[in-house]
Amino acid sequence: MIHNATIDQQVNHRSIRKFKDQQLTEEQLTTLYTVFQHTATSLFMQNATLLHITNETKRAKIRELCGQKYVGAQGDLFIFVVDLYRNQQIRRQLGKDDGRLHTTDIFFQGLDDTLLAWQNVANAVESMGLGYVPLGTINDHPLAMLDILDLPKLTFPALGMQVGVPDQEPQLKPRLPLEFTTFENEYPRDFAVDSLKDYDQVVTTYYDLRDTNKRIDSFTKQITGEKLNTKAIDRDELPELLHKQELCLDWKLN
Amino acid sequence: MIHNATIDQQVNHRSIRKFKDQQLTEEQLTTLYTVFQHTATSLFMQNATLLHITNETKRAKIRELCGQKYVGAQGDLFIFVVDLYRNQQIRRQLGKDDGRLHTTDIFFQGLDDTLLAWQNVANAVESMGLGYVPLGTINDHPLAMLDILDLPKLTFPALGMQVGVPDQEPQLKPRLPLEFTTFENEYPRDFAVDSLKDYDQVVTTYYDLRDTNKRIDSFTKQITGEKLNTKAIDRDELPELLHKQELCLDWKLN
Repeated sequence: MIHNATIDQQVNHRSIRKFKDQQLTEEQLTTLYTVFQHTATSLFMQNATLLHITNETKRAKIRELCGQKYVGAQGDLFIFVVDLYRNQQIRRQLGKDDGRLHTTDIFFQGLDDTLLAWQNVANAVESMGLGYVPLGTINDHPLAMLDILDLPKLTFPALGMQVGVPDQEPQLKPRLPLEFTTFENEYPRDFAVDSLKDYDQVVTTYYDLRDTNKRIDSFTKQITGEKLNTKAIDRDELPELLHKQELCLDWKLN
Repeated sequence: MIHNATIDQQVNHRSIRKFKDQQLTEEQLTTLYTVFQHTATSLFMQNATLLHITNETKRAKIRELCGQKYVGAQGDLFIFVVDLYRNQQIRRQLGKDDGRLHTTDIFFQGLDDTLLAWQNVANAVESMGLGYVPLGTINDHPLAMLDILDLPKLTFPALGMQVGVPDQEPQLKPRLPLEFTTFENEYPRDFAVDSLKDYDQVVTTYYDLRDTNKRIDSFTKQITGEKLNTKAIDRDELPELLHKQELCLDWKLN
């Protein structure tokens, strides 16, 4: 195992859900924006936009939709947006049609740009001694969130991030051993759930020992449980949201 | 602007397309895998898998489909795969149905996991003094690529990466100024293409000065040109590929 400042921080990553009541400085913000800006981008299209939400009313509404008390509370709230609107404007104002902007292909390239920029910013955050938590919950109620963010067509809020000065020190969460997630040349189809027995035990022990939020669930128990069981939730508005935004129009809605 | 080893490397990122004829060491590989493993994951579902392609026949076939001579040539080739197959196996072998695995929602969460892991690995690569180039071209011919990779249902090869010891020193590519990509609270709809005049000049000068591959294209000229113009290409097989993989089944094909 190789060690340096970047890698040591990456392999010790843990999400922070409790922050000190302190905002990022202008210098910290500019640094994060510059890292965002320099992320690799598909076909040099630069399809990502970063929203910094500082307005208290807006933060409260987003927090309510996300259903997590730390969203838009202490620290700084960011929304990473797939943005094909800017390039549409360039094309239209220069007399061109929208071309391929409404295809799944170009949307996925925008999603690449946006999510790579997300992780790049995340690593910069931790390198400054700050912490973050990913906010997938910004898509718990996609249509309602779009109203709050008031985004134009051809944009899609992909993932949020709450950033701040950590006010907790969570334990490192045990991940699937590499033998289950990294393969050479061939994807093995002979996965046997029995092989997860040891890992299940490690995860159970982790929950047993951690200070807060006692829940004793093995990995396989979580995967066979509520989070993947069939249910009717607003997250299934995603295709409708994308079509409302005129994205992925080479697909039909059910 | 804040400086540290991680950030200085991020804001100086450039893609490397020429590598020395040298493979990664076992220690470098293990380190990259460990970074991959510790990336944030949505709902702790761990929906990402990393394929390392070392087989020469397979590398040649992938190179041909990608149409870029550096793919699978010098250095190491990785394919980052959205993987819901593993969790399907866990559920089925423990007597459960597939639940929400075929929804767009869960697929997008898998895409989050996979693309965040991609950028995390990318940052680790550069921290070791190595370089990389993103391979979006693995989706230039989606159905043919699926045949070569021979992946099970409920998986999707999202993005590739060629990694190695740099054998070139490209110039830093000028990005859109922050005023166009980072906003506070409101997304401004009043974008005017004229405001890109200075940036267009910077991009033109960059192409004019760079050593290789002389092409003098402003940013707006690129966006109004071939890369976004309407055309019939295999990349539009993406919806068909996803359905073949039983992903996003809450959408219909056109």
